[in-house]
Amino acid sequence: MESLVAWAPVMAFVGLGVALGIYRSILRQPEGSPRMAQIAAMIHEGAMAFLRREYSILVVFIVVVAALLYFFITPRTALAFVAGGGLSMLAGFIGMKGATRANVRASEAARGRGRDAALGVAYFGGAIMGLSVASLGLLGVAGFFLAYVALADTPTVPDLAGFAMGASSIALFARVGGGIYTKSADVGSDLVGKVEAGIPEDDPRNPGVIADNVGDCVGDTAGLGADIFESYVGSVIAAVTIGAALGEMNAAYMAAPILVVMVGLAASLLGLASMKLMRGVDPAVTLRVTSFIAAALMLAGAYGVVVGLKLPMGVWGAIALGAVAGVAIGLLTEFYTGMYDPVKHLSETALTGSATILINGFALALESVAAPVVVICIATFYANELAGLYGIGIAAVGMLATVGITMSVDAYGPIADNAGGISEMAGLGPETRKITDALDALGNTTAAIGKGFAIGSAAMTALALFSAYIKAVGLTEINLVDTRVVIGMFLGGAVTFVIASLTMKSVGKAAMKMVDEIRRQFREIPGLMEGTGKPDPARCVDIATKGALTEMILPGMIAVLFPIGIGFLLGPTGLGGMLAGATVTGVLLALLMANGGGAWDNAKKYIEEGHFGGKGSAAHKAAVVGDTVGDPFKDTSGPAMNILIKLMSIISLVIAPLLI
Amino acid sequence: MESLVAWAPVMAFVGLGVALGIYRSILRQPEGSPRMAQIAAMIHEGAMAFLRREYSILVVFIVVVAALLYFFITPRTALAFVAGGGLSMLAGFIGMKGATRANVRASEAARGRGRDAALGVAYFGGAIMGLSVASLGLLGVAGFFLAYVALADTPTVPDLAGFAMGASSIALFARVGGGIYTKSADVGSDLVGKVEAGIPEDDPRNPGVIADNVGDCVGDTAGLGADIFESYVGSVIAAVTIGAALGEMNAAYMAAPILVVMVGLAASLLGLASMKLMRGVDPAVTLRVTSFIAAALMLAGAYGVVVGLKLPMGVWGAIALGAVAGVAIGLLTEFYTGMYDPVKHLSETALTGSATILINGFALALESVAAPVVVICIATFYANELAGLYGIGIAAVGMLATVGITMSVDAYGPIADNAGGISEMAGLGPETRKITDALDALGNTTAAIGKGFAIGSAAMTALALFSAYIKAVGLTEINLVDTRVVIGMFLGGAVTFVIASLTMKSVGKAAMKMVDEIRRQFREIPGLMEGTGKPDPARCVDIATKGALTEMILPGMIAVLFPIGIGFLLGPTGLGGMLAGATVTGVLLALLMANGGGAWDNAKKYIEEGHFGGKGSAAHKAAVVGDTVGDPFKDTSGPAMNILIKLMSIISLVIAPLLI
Repeated sequence: MESLVAWAPVMAFVGLGVALGIYRSILRQPEGSPRMAQIAAMIHEGAMAFLRREYSILVVFIVVVAALLYFFITPRTALAFVAGGGLSMLAGFIGMKGATRANVRASEAARGRGRDAALGVAYFGGAIMGLSVASLGLLGVAGFFLAYVALADTPTVPDLAGFAMGASSIALFARVGGGIYTKSADVGSDLVGKVEAGIPEDDPRNPGVIADNVGDCVGDTAGLGADIFESYVGSVIAAVTIGAALGEMNAAYMAAPILVVMVGLAASLLGLASMKLMRGVDPAVTLRVTSFIAAALMLAGAYGVVVGLKLPMGVWGAIALGAVAGVAIGLLTEFYTGMYDPVKHLSETALTGSATILINGFALALESVAAPVVVICIATFYANELAGLYGIGIAAVGMLATVGITMSVDAYGPIADNAGGISEMAGLGPETRKITDALDALGNTTAAIGKGFAIGSAAMTALALFSAYIKAVGLTEINLVDTRVVIGMFLGGAVTFVIASLTMKSVGKAAMKMVDEIRRQFREIPGLMEGTGKPDPARCVDIATKGALTEMILPGMIAVLFPIGIGFLLGPTGLGGMLAGATVTGVLLALLMANGGGAWDNAKKYIEEGHFGGKGSAAHKAAVVGDTVGDPFKDTSGPAMNILIKLMSIISLVIAPLLI
Repeated sequence: MESLVAWAPVMAFVGLGVALGIYRSILRQPEGSPRMAQIAAMIHEGAMAFLRREYSILVVFIVVVAALLYFFITPRTALAFVAGGGLSMLAGFIGMKGATRANVRASEAARGRGRDAALGVAYFGGAIMGLSVASLGLLGVAGFFLAYVALADTPTVPDLAGFAMGASSIALFARVGGGIYTKSADVGSDLVGKVEAGIPEDDPRNPGVIADNVGDCVGDTAGLGADIFESYVGSVIAAVTIGAALGEMNAAYMAAPILVVMVGLAASLLGLASMKLMRGVDPAVTLRVTSFIAAALMLAGAYGVVVGLKLPMGVWGAIALGAVAGVAIGLLTEFYTGMYDPVKHLSETALTGSATILINGFALALESVAAPVVVICIATFYANELAGLYGIGIAAVGMLATVGITMSVDAYGPIADNAGGISEMAGLGPETRKITDALDALGNTTAAIGKGFAIGSAAMTALALFSAYIKAVGLTEINLVDTRVVIGMFLGGAVTFVIASLTMKSVGKAAMKMVDEIRRQFREIPGLMEGTGKPDPARCVDIATKGALTEMILPGMIAVLFPIGIGFLLGPTGLGGMLAGATVTGVLLALLMANGGGAWDNAKKYIEEGHFGGKGSAAHKAAVVGDTVGDPFKDTSGPAMNILIKLMSIISLVIAPLLI
């Protein structure tokens, strides 16, 4: 059965083929009025221009690092690194194409054909990203596994880590750059447009709105895609690396993670297809049911894989644990950030001013880390009981196997958000707005769940990579009795705080430049407020792009160089301590920031629904302050933590041979 | 030389005698006008009533836990526990007496005899607390050391831990209760008085001002005192416990920490005496120089101890490292929270509103953890290089040996603060106010340094206790390869977040009750605003007291029960992981919260000095929001972290015999 791995590239091409088919079918849909087409073109161009410029910087980074890997590690690692980075960028590129083509067509579908049609366009638009991530990830991982291990004369498992490191490096820059972009554009256009000029969100007179919509794409689509891509390939490579050390059964243990993600991709395709059966069903139910169908099919297929490979049944148990834990963390995130009691109570504290909603929101965020951490602990504990360290690795794979569909749902959110923005800017009717608003609100829920899932999967992947690192350096212990380990833990904890600080300040700096530019346009372009003058959105897009790309360099370099420095300063055990400290505090900070930001956001929305005085009341003003503080929490610094912990683990794994 | 330990109780009584002499000499100073005496009496009674009620709850707790220790651990542990709790309470009681007698006399000295006299009264008032903590701590630790170890037929070192556990339990409740009290009174009276009624801070018409001034005493004097008392005895007991395992030289290793704190107390007394030589010198310089004199004398004495005990010179190096690290962390805290570039830049961000000062303050706080953590790591690393795990323990002792004077400087702050409040309430002239304002501002600086020192010493003590725990459970490894350890780390990290959340929410709840009461008095008492009606401050004091005592129970119980639960659930290695996780995240959170809160506080003060629009400007309003958010950070939740990590470590040490 191990030989079935050779079919993985075929499966990957099937997935890519379906993605291409969906892309073509979306392109065939009408774009609507010329005004809509024009707005969509601006968003598309802005997003693609950002990606092009970001990638042109990252290519330099990849070449430099590849050269270092070539000389200091192995040429094979360097090659895998380039491929990992390249395929991650390609997935982001394809997904972004899909998203920026689907947004306007979802808007037009809402206008001409109603809710189900609009949901279908937005969802399948997201599926282009979902399937690209899953297919290209599978292609790369399986391809290098075949070339370096299964079909190689001298198998070299450690070189595989280069692929995950490539994916991880791109993810860091994409997440940080995208996060800074989206929030600087959002905060900048809100501050001048909504607050100073007093015009509504997404008003076409605001020069920043195009940048704001571009930001949704580059942050939530490309950034999240790269994040998930990395978790996906990282978990598989971690499981393979651990499996390689498992004695005579190791061929089966190494094949299992790849076969499971193959099965997961097939299950995702069937889940997507099941969408066609859901006409007339509530959109929220549709998204949930299709995901569950895919998960159930994946688990059934994984059962076949485990039996076929003659692995102990505990391996399947670990896969199931991972899948269930991913869902549980997503739902817990929804509980703390959705329209439930915690957020409703939080919005009430806005009645006594911004200080109280901030204190209570922060307290809520601090508290909200407990339950997801317990879920991670239970999953880790039982995965280990069932199948040892390998169980932790394969549980992470189980959590991520159906990425083809979970990422589709995640990518749906920004498309629906964009569709709403385009409807507003193009002045479509209230009926259309109602549909796009409803789809957008659903997108906020899926985004919250997606964030929780991203953190949970990052935590599991980081733990799996940590286990792989331990195997790779050949350590039997990373002992807390050893002072280097304790020091490493402290430094690992501190570096997550520093990266969070840097990214948070970056948003502020980039946003201030955006504010200056939008103010300048309102001041200098005659008739802009009256609707007779034309704004220059391209300049705003350009400023957000430059700001994001400049600001992503420093945190990115720290994340890359820190584990290397610690490794040489404190040795392999100290580096192990550093990873443990960074993983624990990184996961806690990521949960704190994602849930805090999400809760403030929805507390504001709850007030806007008419509670506690509604829009324009003192409570609303206080809640807006909370929401603004939460923005960089949830969309910039928090997500950066996911990548940071994975990237530092994977770099440690790659440099392990140098430390022994 | 080991036998000199028998003189420790004598030294302790000398310290107590000096404290008593100072107390008497302060009582002889004039109290000023009848109005001043009356205000002072109200503060005194409020503070003492709080302590009485707090202690009457804690006595129940102590009896219950002592009974459990008696049956499940050893009767000797139970006895030491009761003594540790009792002496901590006694130190708090004496210190509070001193503080609430000195405040009004410092105010009167400022009126009648000028700055130097006022400084002297406030500083020596603080010295009552400083000397009580140092002397009673020494008395207890040395007494039990003599009884259980040095003079015992069958030495039982583990039973000593009971003493630290008693001190630690009291500290937790005192810190949390005091922190909730001070902030609920502060926020409550500010919200209604300053914001709603528009009257100045410390205005006698505000019914909450007495509670606010009581809060300064119970939070910053009694709470901080219990915190430092715990670090002091905890570090000594940890070093003794580690020393006990060091083979044939162990008698010398065990005696060293006690002799060092004896020397430290003597050095503190000389440092205090040197104050007399400082007439006319700038108060800030005076405080600093006397502390440095004491530290230098302590290091000289410690050198004699190390030579006399024939210990390796590395032990002295570790002591010096600890002392220097304590100073360094304090100065770093001052840099991030005092009137330097970080705070000045932060206050500028208030120009664009409360959201930006909050984001930037949070970013500043995140960043500010790095340097102190590096200092802790360097100290830990080299202490270990110089003298192994014992080096870490003795470094913590070195940091804390001159507590007699560092705590005096810390306790000076709230006395100066109170003196300012009394001058305002009693309507003393602008000349007097100028002096008390200057002394109060200096108090804010010393408080910032004191907070940093408290965190640094808590971190070192927790690490020392952690090392002692490892020795006590007889583990040679707490291995991060073991999943239980990793899970323990995650849970330890999460519990610090949960405690921070609970304490933060408690402030909100208690403050709301205070707001309601103050509003009621303004509404129902005729002529209160006009100055003809009399406020009822006793009711406010009562409400703050009840609120604080009710709210301290839950976080206190979690802190006590959590390590026990983890110990039995995950075993001794899992518990070790939990302690490591909690220590790392607890130290990071403590630094984040202390520095964030301090920076927001001083950013507001910097604007009040006339920058960026000064008092009443939009920037000032934004900065007030930052300050309000920062209040529970720096005075409630942040300090609670110090205790939490020490308490959980000491409980683990005590229950170690049950886990083996």
